[in-house]
Amino acid sequence: MRISVLGFGTVGRGVYEMICKAKGMEVRKVLVLPAECSESFMVTSIDEITSDKETDVVVECMGGIHPAYEFASSCLKAGKSFVTSNKALVAEYGIELEALAKEKDVSFLFSAACGGAIPVLHNISVASQTDRILRCGGILNGTTNFILTNMQDNGKDYKEALAEAQRLGYAEADPTADVSGMDTMRKVMLLSSVSFSSLPVENLCCEGIENFTKDIADYVKERGLSVRLMGFCGKTAEGIYAYVEPVVVSSSAVEASISSNINFAWYEGENSGFIGLMGQGAGRYPTASAVLRDLSAVMEGKKSMIGPDCVRIKADNGICMNSYLLCIDGVFSAIENISVTDMHKKAKELREKGSKVFFAQYKK
Amino acid sequence: MRISVLGFGTVGRGVYEMICKAKGMEVRKVLVLPAECSESFMVTSIDEITSDKETDVVVECMGGIHPAYEFASSCLKAGKSFVTSNKALVAEYGIELEALAKEKDVSFLFSAACGGAIPVLHNISVASQTDRILRCGGILNGTTNFILTNMQDNGKDYKEALAEAQRLGYAEADPTADVSGMDTMRKVMLLSSVSFSSLPVENLCCEGIENFTKDIADYVKERGLSVRLMGFCGKTAEGIYAYVEPVVVSSSAVEASISSNINFAWYEGENSGFIGLMGQGAGRYPTASAVLRDLSAVMEGKKSMIGPDCVRIKADNGICMNSYLLCIDGVFSAIENISVTDMHKKAKELREKGSKVFFAQYKK
Repeated sequence: MRISVLGFGTVGRGVYEMICKAKGMEVRKVLVLPAECSESFMVTSIDEITSDKETDVVVECMGGIHPAYEFASSCLKAGKSFVTSNKALVAEYGIELEALAKEKDVSFLFSAACGGAIPVLHNISVASQTDRILRCGGILNGTTNFILTNMQDNGKDYKEALAEAQRLGYAEADPTADVSGMDTMRKVMLLSSVSFSSLPVENLCCEGIENFTKDIADYVKERGLSVRLMGFCGKTAEGIYAYVEPVVVSSSAVEASISSNINFAWYEGENSGFIGLMGQGAGRYPTASAVLRDLSAVMEGKKSMIGPDCVRIKADNGICMNSYLLCIDGVFSAIENISVTDMHKKAKELREKGSKVFFAQYKK
Repeated sequence: MRISVLGFGTVGRGVYEMICKAKGMEVRKVLVLPAECSESFMVTSIDEITSDKETDVVVECMGGIHPAYEFASSCLKAGKSFVTSNKALVAEYGIELEALAKEKDVSFLFSAACGGAIPVLHNISVASQTDRILRCGGILNGTTNFILTNMQDNGKDYKEALAEAQRLGYAEADPTADVSGMDTMRKVMLLSSVSFSSLPVENLCCEGIENFTKDIADYVKERGLSVRLMGFCGKTAEGIYAYVEPVVVSSSAVEASISSNINFAWYEGENSGFIGLMGQGAGRYPTASAVLRDLSAVMEGKKSMIGPDCVRIKADNGICMNSYLLCIDGVFSAIENISVTDMHKKAKELREKGSKVFFAQYKK
């Protein structure tokens, strides 16, 4: 199988190296910036790849939505299978790209876009053929997990922990997408699209970690508890929910053992029960290993992870009732049995009145 | 795809029910004991299945090595794909059955034989196509994990904890295969055969939990530690190791959060890094869900989990150096940097002299 790669950054280089070593695979061309064009296999225009009759599959590791979407479309239209590690692209245009792939009878896979090396989308995709997926979620963002565990285990304050994450390359100069929970939310959207053929795009509830403080870390630690940022989605008779929020877990819970930049994803099948998966959620070779698994699946004829019937939906987070730890201007309290929608709305209202608010679900 | 099932016990009934609900699958015949033969699809002779031209795949959920091996051979010889949940069968005759399947160009899969619902063999099999597996292992026996955690969390002694496991159906009347570590060892053999195309059959080191006591449970608990039974295998430049022994873990380790009859399997790929998987290691629907995943893979054309080059090998546990907690006749000590082979030999020698010995690896 002959593969061209879009992007030659952290993941792209790893993918390139792994393809060179893989049985039955070879690299055709790599799309790079003009300044990087130093090898004969490197090209600087997407046309050189879409028009290359010997490219069977294109791997995209550029990130960002544009021009990734335009490139994906033109590759699929040219009849090439498309494998991507780009969660923003799939969350925004996955349905359109799947339709194009189906039209051209080629593959569209994106395992590496959720959980890095952790084969969670792959396993949900396989399991859902013979089992019914009830819910899924997890600790899906290594940056925020690093910040949270660094604050709780090492007594750092938020600024110090974030700065250290940036120094180590775990957080970007602008960390908003991570700390706001948006990155986790996009992964939840992909989990839902693969699990339920439903891409939730409206009425999402997304709370990040920007309001977590050293005082809150001390408070939960004194009680033998620990905070993690988690995403959740599930399908019930009443609808589909999809939300992201901090969660308080006991020190004996699996989630409490997920430290630093490790990810933990899980799903629950009607028959299989709870299946948890942990591993590196990012990094050159871990992410490349997930891309290579997809390439191997393309070789075996796997076409898609989301069904052709996948549709955009409104989430209904009013159907989920949780209990929460709440901290308003430094005062701690608990709220029992409130819907996710109402909790997120309440926090927003309090903030509009000028209060500093942190809340975290008490894990059932 | 038309499927016949051998055995209609806990797992067999679950498989039957799940096939009835699965897309593209139907049940042809179920082999039962004469006394159970109450439905038209039930048969009491294997010949009625091997001679049934409309059976594409046979699922075996009888357990035991004989007549499971003879039945497996005759089904494969009759050109039927074969899926089994029987670890003893695969550990003993997997290589012969794989050769037969290859000869007839049919599938031979056994995901459910290691880890129950946890897709560890499936994922190692997929990952090893594009990554090099370095090592694997885990907490692979729910019965012993239930006994160990019941003793450590609830202060039960060994006899009480075992009796409770038997009462709940987690342990058999004769619990030897579980508590001796043999069941875990067989799963390690399967992990090794899929990961390294090498089935270790000699020089295995296998220590169970029969010598774990309430006093030892108290000793480790006071130190914030916890004991689990784990299996390990790996491939280095010097050889392949494969062993089972109790392990002492810190309370913040993932393994410490694996309670009751939950299993935790892991592998480490050269590129993917550490990937951990947890879930139900046994039970009707969890195990059936793994069988159904295999059936789905057969439909997609997957032929095998172990390569045709898989061979029986001698393990070399002299290449693994660990540190151990040791308890000889109630006296605790530590041994540093001793090989697995030497530690297991030392315990045997001490026992031959009449001492009561427990040892557990300090997890690195």
